[in-house]
Amino acid sequence: MNSAAVPTPPATLAASLLAYSERAETALARLLPPQDQPPVELHRAMHYAVLGGGKRLRPLLVYATGRALGASLDQLDAAAAAVEIIHAYSLAHDDLPAMDDDDLRRGRPTCHIVFGEAMAILAGDALQALAFELLAADAALRVTPAVRVEMLRVLGAACGSHGMAGGQALDLAAVGKLLSPAELERMHSHKTGALIRASVRLGALAAGCSDTGRLDALERYGHCIGLAFQIRDDILDIEGESHVIGKTAGKDVANDKPTYPAIHGLEPSRRLLADLTGEALGAIAPFGPDVDELAQIARFVAERAS
Amino acid sequence: MNSAAVPTPPATLAASLLAYSERAETALARLLPPQDQPPVELHRAMHYAVLGGGKRLRPLLVYATGRALGASLDQLDAAAAAVEIIHAYSLAHDDLPAMDDDDLRRGRPTCHIVFGEAMAILAGDALQALAFELLAADAALRVTPAVRVEMLRVLGAACGSHGMAGGQALDLAAVGKLLSPAELERMHSHKTGALIRASVRLGALAAGCSDTGRLDALERYGHCIGLAFQIRDDILDIEGESHVIGKTAGKDVANDKPTYPAIHGLEPSRRLLADLTGEALGAIAPFGPDVDELAQIARFVAERAS
Repeated sequence: MNSAAVPTPPATLAASLLAYSERAETALARLLPPQDQPPVELHRAMHYAVLGGGKRLRPLLVYATGRALGASLDQLDAAAAAVEIIHAYSLAHDDLPAMDDDDLRRGRPTCHIVFGEAMAILAGDALQALAFELLAADAALRVTPAVRVEMLRVLGAACGSHGMAGGQALDLAAVGKLLSPAELERMHSHKTGALIRASVRLGALAAGCSDTGRLDALERYGHCIGLAFQIRDDILDIEGESHVIGKTAGKDVANDKPTYPAIHGLEPSRRLLADLTGEALGAIAPFGPDVDELAQIARFVAERAS
Repeated sequence: MNSAAVPTPPATLAASLLAYSERAETALARLLPPQDQPPVELHRAMHYAVLGGGKRLRPLLVYATGRALGASLDQLDAAAAAVEIIHAYSLAHDDLPAMDDDDLRRGRPTCHIVFGEAMAILAGDALQALAFELLAADAALRVTPAVRVEMLRVLGAACGSHGMAGGQALDLAAVGKLLSPAELERMHSHKTGALIRASVRLGALAAGCSDTGRLDALERYGHCIGLAFQIRDDILDIEGESHVIGKTAGKDVANDKPTYPAIHGLEPSRRLLADLTGEALGAIAPFGPDVDELAQIARFVAERAS
């Protein structure tokens, strides 16, 4: 985004976020191996897992952060695609019968329903490798090799046992247990938070940002909107149910999984969501109007209806 | 290995390969996240999947290639660990009920038998991420950032849909089908060959080798011993006993998997194995006595009883 003396009005912001989302879709379709290239079935499963839906929150964060710090869009495509590919692989594995056993995702049959369990496992595995390969090989990502290595390290740490996969393990262990608020935050800070923070950091690194103060502020922003995203998810789960089946809000704890409303209560969860959104906006306030898009994303995360 | 005017005798070679294998074990134990660090169950599953057995062929190739080209052992630990971690994750996923459904591996219950399917999936996922993180972050790997990026790219390509995961997909699609010899080679060249070739290349890159001719010769060596390894595996499945090979003998035949003996016949498979071993030795002959350890590995691959 160009720096402007006058804040961009929300309508324009919404349009630029939509444009990022469309750009992510195009970049993903271009950077995935062609579906007609062997092994065809594996490549079809990879495309299916990645394309055709989703909010593309992580690519939005890469584009909005990178643009705010001066990168061009084509310098950001590989990082935007890499984080979304990691997210997509984690969903394909998360939906497996041995994990959450979900048949539906984004209104479509899940990857293993369409391609079988073995192929869904392999597609996820191949997607994870692809994300690293893209970051290592993409020619449009014009950073020094040292920065590229740092980007690969950030992505690796975000995906591993101290990041997303670790959060999944905490989630598995939490089913049917009463978590403390700190344990709940710890789980989500890993499961979804790690990759969201990495998305912001990768956007900044792709733009050549090496200012520790700025990177820390962006990390804080990422941390807050990551948790806010999860709280909104938990609230929507309850409100969606209330609307559809008319049960008392907060009565059902979906699948015996710990949620923010179950542990904090519904109203305190709403307040926590508002507080985190405020903290996210505060963290990036010193950047001024350059980060209006990031502010808009924080508001979108807090207010989204789906 | 130091260059020497007189070829090292085989007994010494066997001892140095054993030393590499032990070094790999130590490096893996050091570079895996501690088991008492949360998430404990995930870290235990990762340790279980990686440690306590296996031939460590891929680390041997990293060490032997890197030493032949002048690297010190500590410069090679990260790459040696990375390729073995990738191999271990692929076995943990390959053994899952939805894939090969194996209960026994290296004479022990497989990862999902001990930790459950969900944790075996997550452990594999976290291991893949760890391999990339190690290559990106290890301080003892003293190469330029540009070479490190190339190493990460090589590892990514070896793991993805045009490498190991692609080979697994071809393997899945091949069950119950009659493959042509070319299709069989194509499958194994991806499934096991890609990571074996990458091991040799990573060892060379870690040693700072940028000579295209040398890299190509090493690639040819890796290609040949990768296929030789698979042919020996197939022969052992027929001739070996379960307690020696550490897995259920006759399993390939029982599962209707395409094997070299099934497609070529047993004797032609033995001849092919000998030819490939000869080609591997020929490819590295110009390097002279510096690569005696690689020659020894090629012989070990062809003659091993387990």
